[in-house]
Amino acid sequence: MTALEYAKIEREQSLNELKEFLSLPTISTLSEHRADVQRGAEWVADNLRAMGMEHVEIMPTAEGRGQPLVYADWLHADGAPTVLVYGHFDVQPVDPLHEWLTPPFEPTIIGETIYARGASDMKSQTHAFMKALEALLKTDSLRVNVKVIAEGEEEIGSPNLAPFLRAHKEKLKCDVALNADSQMVARELPSIVYGLRGLAYFELTVYGAAQDLHSGLFGGAIHNPVQVLCELIAGMHDAAGRITLPNFYEDVRVLTAEERVELARYPRTEQQWVDMTGVRELYGEKGFSTVERTGARPTLEVNGFLAGFTGEGAKTVLPAKAMAKISTRLVPYQRPEKVHAQLSAYLEQHAPSTVRWELQTRGGSNEAVLLNRASRYVNAAADALQETFGVAPVFQLLGWSVPVTNMLNDELGVDVVVMGFGLPDDGMHGPNEHFYLPNYYRGVESYVRFFQNVAKE
Amino acid sequence: MTALEYAKIEREQSLNELKEFLSLPTISTLSEHRADVQRGAEWVADNLRAMGMEHVEIMPTAEGRGQPLVYADWLHADGAPTVLVYGHFDVQPVDPLHEWLTPPFEPTIIGETIYARGASDMKSQTHAFMKALEALLKTDSLRVNVKVIAEGEEEIGSPNLAPFLRAHKEKLKCDVALNADSQMVARELPSIVYGLRGLAYFELTVYGAAQDLHSGLFGGAIHNPVQVLCELIAGMHDAAGRITLPNFYEDVRVLTAEERVELARYPRTEQQWVDMTGVRELYGEKGFSTVERTGARPTLEVNGFLAGFTGEGAKTVLPAKAMAKISTRLVPYQRPEKVHAQLSAYLEQHAPSTVRWELQTRGGSNEAVLLNRASRYVNAAADALQETFGVAPVFQLLGWSVPVTNMLNDELGVDVVVMGFGLPDDGMHGPNEHFYLPNYYRGVESYVRFFQNVAKE
Repeated sequence: MTALEYAKIEREQSLNELKEFLSLPTISTLSEHRADVQRGAEWVADNLRAMGMEHVEIMPTAEGRGQPLVYADWLHADGAPTVLVYGHFDVQPVDPLHEWLTPPFEPTIIGETIYARGASDMKSQTHAFMKALEALLKTDSLRVNVKVIAEGEEEIGSPNLAPFLRAHKEKLKCDVALNADSQMVARELPSIVYGLRGLAYFELTVYGAAQDLHSGLFGGAIHNPVQVLCELIAGMHDAAGRITLPNFYEDVRVLTAEERVELARYPRTEQQWVDMTGVRELYGEKGFSTVERTGARPTLEVNGFLAGFTGEGAKTVLPAKAMAKISTRLVPYQRPEKVHAQLSAYLEQHAPSTVRWELQTRGGSNEAVLLNRASRYVNAAADALQETFGVAPVFQLLGWSVPVTNMLNDELGVDVVVMGFGLPDDGMHGPNEHFYLPNYYRGVESYVRFFQNVAKE
Repeated sequence: MTALEYAKIEREQSLNELKEFLSLPTISTLSEHRADVQRGAEWVADNLRAMGMEHVEIMPTAEGRGQPLVYADWLHADGAPTVLVYGHFDVQPVDPLHEWLTPPFEPTIIGETIYARGASDMKSQTHAFMKALEALLKTDSLRVNVKVIAEGEEEIGSPNLAPFLRAHKEKLKCDVALNADSQMVARELPSIVYGLRGLAYFELTVYGAAQDLHSGLFGGAIHNPVQVLCELIAGMHDAAGRITLPNFYEDVRVLTAEERVELARYPRTEQQWVDMTGVRELYGEKGFSTVERTGARPTLEVNGFLAGFTGEGAKTVLPAKAMAKISTRLVPYQRPEKVHAQLSAYLEQHAPSTVRWELQTRGGSNEAVLLNRASRYVNAAADALQETFGVAPVFQLLGWSVPVTNMLNDELGVDVVVMGFGLPDDGMHGPNEHFYLPNYYRGVESYVRFFQNVAKE
């Protein structure tokens, strides 16, 4: 029996296990669920042990203050590459609970879809690669070395993952990492992510008078810091939608013609973008498609703005200060520190001498990630998806950051393959999260083929 | 004995009465002080009756739901003009009480200054014109007809004054109104206000997506409404600090050369403006002094701005909307409705088609007031101040609105003389409100002379 045959026969059993896995309320952010997260780790560890993975270990993080992480390996394919597979078993909280049509921790199948918290993010996928490994191990056909790490705190931002990767560099040594926490672009169109945008986040405050003033007494005497901040923000883009910070585009990676053709395969029409967002018209940097603008081009956005009187009615105040949250999505080769310097330089050039300003970074910044699209491992994944779905995967640049991918890339220093099977409208993090079951089975098959292809190539 | 001699002899008695008046906690905005406001009305009425004023009446407002108003008259100067005198006897609340160095309703004299809530705004001045009338009546030298209205709800915005003036048009008929609720520009420099700016207040909201979006998923696809609102606001002024709304300056009254000379007498240096506000530099419309900019030129100010995430830290949200409170201070001949239309026209011209916007008026708008600076009554007041202080009063244009002045001007249709004796740093509405007593006595004298001058001219 081949591994793929095993996986097919095993489908009913797989689904029962998945339901069991999904019924564990492994909410990592809520301390009252700490024991449930531990049970989740144990469930994963038991399962890995039962299929024949070795050195299965539940490892504490942050000296036991963090949520546990499960490690396992199987290292008997001498001379073959070693694949490190990443998944997580923790989930988001469930509120607002009253919006769920079925209980979040009682997995419910309606038609071809399973509803449960964590169904899409990402227990179905963690379980899919586990079932793939089981199929290969049970049929004695695993021909690569495998290490698995299943994390219990991805939904709280993986605060202990990078230190863990650093602390166990030797143990986690591998040739390629597979991050299964990803999506397809549509039900029948698989996808491989080869790039993620980075982020630099700032808080800019402009100060005018020492305190709020009466606009009747002082309107006309001073430069209103709200107006100044508006002028500064307005000047950060030109008429073509380009960002005007000095040398901002200097390091920006230019798309190849081939990439632009590939990105154009992304199956979302302009009208679909409009419908999804509810805007009157789309807008962005001239000369680029919406897919390029949201994945392959940097942006600068005002995320918040607060100044003066914002309650009901009228108050004739001249605010003493104005604050904006401003962030930039970065593309490969841009560095957050450099963008900080560019924004400072812009402010030094353009802020009038009537005001003081202060620029601070907020939150964690990170660089964009560009994975090696041409590596043998990416080819192995692309072939696996093509064989399973009958269509070549779309190579995708994501507009947001997936810190885990950065961590695997940075800390392990190996190629990362990002291949998952969720869908954009799965309701991740929201009520009625769900997963399209045919892609759960195709996920198992794709992972089986991936391990086989890595061994072959 | 002349009236001025009487006033001088009466000084000690006056001060005792003033202290009694100031000890009444006539806080109009707090319902628990309703009986105190009534007592205030009775105190004023008794005092007017005792000096010989006639038809003294405590009149309810808003069918008894409002605070009472005191009316009195003396109409025995056949053929002479009739002066309607306006004052109020209600005061602001006292919080923060712990910041008061003396109890707010236990008037305390330190040096030449009396400390109490209402000392500057405006019981000392209401009492000063009452003492002036008493001096004239007791010395049989009142040669004009006088009507007095003392209001009990000025500090809550005089909600019932305009209806009252309309309802009693015949009873309140007069040749000139004197509003004693005003200030001098400095201790030794009296002032007559001949103009007040108007106000038009708006709330402008720009709408983008149907709900807040993730900036990683949609940054680059849509026009951020915060950016659009910043661009719109930035465009509302040009590099010379002029307002760019179409035809905004069309109706703006141009200062005469004589007025500009007069306004330059205002004794505040640029450095004093800087010190008062705490700004790094002053700023405003090119070609005008700070006094002109704050009193005689229209301004457009952003009073508040709210959009997106404004808490601590970072949230990568693309806000669905952005809101700004925007108000304009208006000068004579500008009309709030027309400014509304000009702002709408500006938005129609400049708002991009990517967003929706909504413009609403907020609060009460009012036109600027320009009083007849050359009237015989203003001359009578100016002469009275010159005779009392030994220096010609400064003719002042105030940057803010005093609705009572508008109401007297609009409803009675007569010249209004605005002459009062408070000082800009009296701590009106704040803790430790106070009044400089020498100007209380000079106030009595100035009002005596005013009534005498009106009779003469």
